[in-house]
Amino acid sequence: MNPQKQVSLNLNVRGLGQSATLAIKDRCRALRRSGREVYDFGLGQSPFPVPEPVVEALRAAAGQKDYLPVMGLPELREAVAAHHRRTDGLNVSADNVLVGPGSKELMFLVQLVYYGEIMLTPPCWVSYWPQARILGRRFSLLHSDFVRHWKIDAAQLAQSIELVGDDHRPRLLVLNYPSNPTGSTYDEHELKALAEVARRFGLIVLSDEIYGQLHYHGRHVSIARFYPEGTIVSSGLSKWCGAGGWRLGTFTFPNELDWLANALATVASETYTSVSAPIQHAAIRAFSGCPLIEDYLAHTRRILAAVAQRICPILNEAGVRVHEPDGAFYLFLDFNSFAAALAGRSIADGRTLCERLLAETGVAMLPGAAFGRGRRDLTARLAFVDFDGAAALEASRGVGLERPLPAGVVERCCARVVDGVRRIAEWAAS
Amino acid sequence: MNPQKQVSLNLNVRGLGQSATLAIKDRCRALRRSGREVYDFGLGQSPFPVPEPVVEALRAAAGQKDYLPVMGLPELREAVAAHHRRTDGLNVSADNVLVGPGSKELMFLVQLVYYGEIMLTPPCWVSYWPQARILGRRFSLLHSDFVRHWKIDAAQLAQSIELVGDDHRPRLLVLNYPSNPTGSTYDEHELKALAEVARRFGLIVLSDEIYGQLHYHGRHVSIARFYPEGTIVSSGLSKWCGAGGWRLGTFTFPNELDWLANALATVASETYTSVSAPIQHAAIRAFSGCPLIEDYLAHTRRILAAVAQRICPILNEAGVRVHEPDGAFYLFLDFNSFAAALAGRSIADGRTLCERLLAETGVAMLPGAAFGRGRRDLTARLAFVDFDGAAALEASRGVGLERPLPAGVVERCCARVVDGVRRIAEWAAS
Repeated sequence: MNPQKQVSLNLNVRGLGQSATLAIKDRCRALRRSGREVYDFGLGQSPFPVPEPVVEALRAAAGQKDYLPVMGLPELREAVAAHHRRTDGLNVSADNVLVGPGSKELMFLVQLVYYGEIMLTPPCWVSYWPQARILGRRFSLLHSDFVRHWKIDAAQLAQSIELVGDDHRPRLLVLNYPSNPTGSTYDEHELKALAEVARRFGLIVLSDEIYGQLHYHGRHVSIARFYPEGTIVSSGLSKWCGAGGWRLGTFTFPNELDWLANALATVASETYTSVSAPIQHAAIRAFSGCPLIEDYLAHTRRILAAVAQRICPILNEAGVRVHEPDGAFYLFLDFNSFAAALAGRSIADGRTLCERLLAETGVAMLPGAAFGRGRRDLTARLAFVDFDGAAALEASRGVGLERPLPAGVVERCCARVVDGVRRIAEWAAS
Repeated sequence: MNPQKQVSLNLNVRGLGQSATLAIKDRCRALRRSGREVYDFGLGQSPFPVPEPVVEALRAAAGQKDYLPVMGLPELREAVAAHHRRTDGLNVSADNVLVGPGSKELMFLVQLVYYGEIMLTPPCWVSYWPQARILGRRFSLLHSDFVRHWKIDAAQLAQSIELVGDDHRPRLLVLNYPSNPTGSTYDEHELKALAEVARRFGLIVLSDEIYGQLHYHGRHVSIARFYPEGTIVSSGLSKWCGAGGWRLGTFTFPNELDWLANALATVASETYTSVSAPIQHAAIRAFSGCPLIEDYLAHTRRILAAVAQRICPILNEAGVRVHEPDGAFYLFLDFNSFAAALAGRSIADGRTLCERLLAETGVAMLPGAAFGRGRRDLTARLAFVDFDGAAALEASRGVGLERPLPAGVVERCCARVVDGVRRIAEWAAS
């Protein structure tokens, strides 16, 4: 036997599949290639193009070839800090900012360098615990439910810690709002209460605010306002700027957590080195903001809100429970009231539900289990992004922001989304 | 006491400094800002601009915003495979290629997913064992010396394995040629002998060929020609294409190691996701090649060879031992014959040597210890890249490739390099 043919893999990695969101994208590509009509509500990619001033900035930076500083280009770090001062009211400077190749990578590095327990709040983003598993990290779960809009609350947080009997254990709580996969967000009152508990137990809060700029009413509030000394704010270009494929995320650390920021930078210098130079130069423009970008944001928010408003009633009327989101482009669908009927169709878990739905209607969604719900839980995430964002933007701009968006814009520009959602409703009720 | 102020860090990371090459770059920046003249021979960044057709391709791709497949854009994977078929005679296809944000990141992921011993050959590239340390991996070292041009040989490799008494232990041998930090490369005969030992013990060879295209005579040979079933070829845009700051590296796996490629892709999907989309689109152009890029390569090789030829004698005549390199842009300087004289100046290790040299002459180099040599070893790496690559390219193009490069071009365009090297020689002899 030739020994090199033996598979010799880290057991933390063995058996782990590809990220669920990326896998569904590959599957939709393959189905479309085979000629099937697919409603791709799987991957959460912004449907909108990158704003033109930012694309123009990338063209202008195409010749930038130097390795940039590990923490990021100083001008970009300043632009990110200024962005958080301006939009979130945070008291931060360039020194607080770390730029990475996507906030996902930075979250992985935090889990790598930090020694402590990771606290997650399912349903929550798909990659948090595969990362913990790859690194062999310990994590704990704070569950929620439909009635609480899939959110945790301060009393639950305090209780979950007190029950363990180790109040001063190093803990890192990951919050994400507006939430992927639910679209719900925390209000100021809820955040203040959570901040108080976090302070009492000395938690580090990793506040994933990548959808903050996609709050439909532009009223996103960061928990860092109430717990600045213990909060890392995570953001990036992927969602509000439509540039997921560019791969640029940012972490903003308080001075008190400089030891953690420095450890991340050390590992960054031995792994990804720095973010692509042309992308960093272009990102300065994105974070600096300008009237054109403000206009873009206002229109994208208005379109997403209108789509959500159009499709939620279709689902609720069919008995698929769903909350209207506060921001982002997700709905978290609860089919549990159909449990008996679905069982009669041999559907007893979320994964089978999504597979059968895809096979029978062409609609791709991800099961709740990918977001930390139980396997038998009949929930699924719908990313309502399968429409031509450029056309929708143009139509919305034609109306102007002073008037409400006519219903016809969604019907015309986002017909695929409405169609796909109707198919879900019909399929559930059939 | 507020518990979150406690530092709670992974012990594998604690105390680890920033990558030595990046740290020296930051230090040179700071010294220059303070008005000091600095000869920056620290960071190994190509002095040449990115070829214009590749910059143009990035401009054209500025609007590309989609998340790309984890393994890379299919057209890019095909271009990389075709590049290796054309320039290295390897029998590979797009399916064998994985694209990552720099080959450094891919090497880290290999160390993360692979379960086995990592074999390194110091003096070798700075990041291999900090990566192993961060991940808590076991590694072993195969040392070399000046007389052997800092290379290992087949007999040494076989012996080092046999001595352990565990022939079938999973092992991954990292080879890098032309070498950073020495500029030496292996010839066909040496590679065949190493390949034979690798096959006998079922080693995986990670063949870091990032400088392959910078072999001065265009005669780089890959060990994958002789050990295709067990070799991963590492390459990227950073060196031959002058695009270090773009962050794009590639691994090409044999079919036999698909389990390792798939595990890397899984972890990639949970960390960096995919390489920046505009960069991937531009890289297709770089790997596809064209007469303009061939011309660029021919001139950059000629210039680097001429600079090496100009400066090596200055050092050797002063008693600083150095081999003329076969490729890349490094010299590995051996000051050990000055040990007694340097001891008289309170210099007893490589780090002090480099610090005093920087303080007393303005020349920045990295000590051999950064490349795995002993602390007391009086060696240092010189990256002869502190010159205006665009101007040198223009001057070389003015001469044409059919005639030899006139000595005046190096004197005129690379005066800083020659000056800096003279300072080293004078300082050593003083």
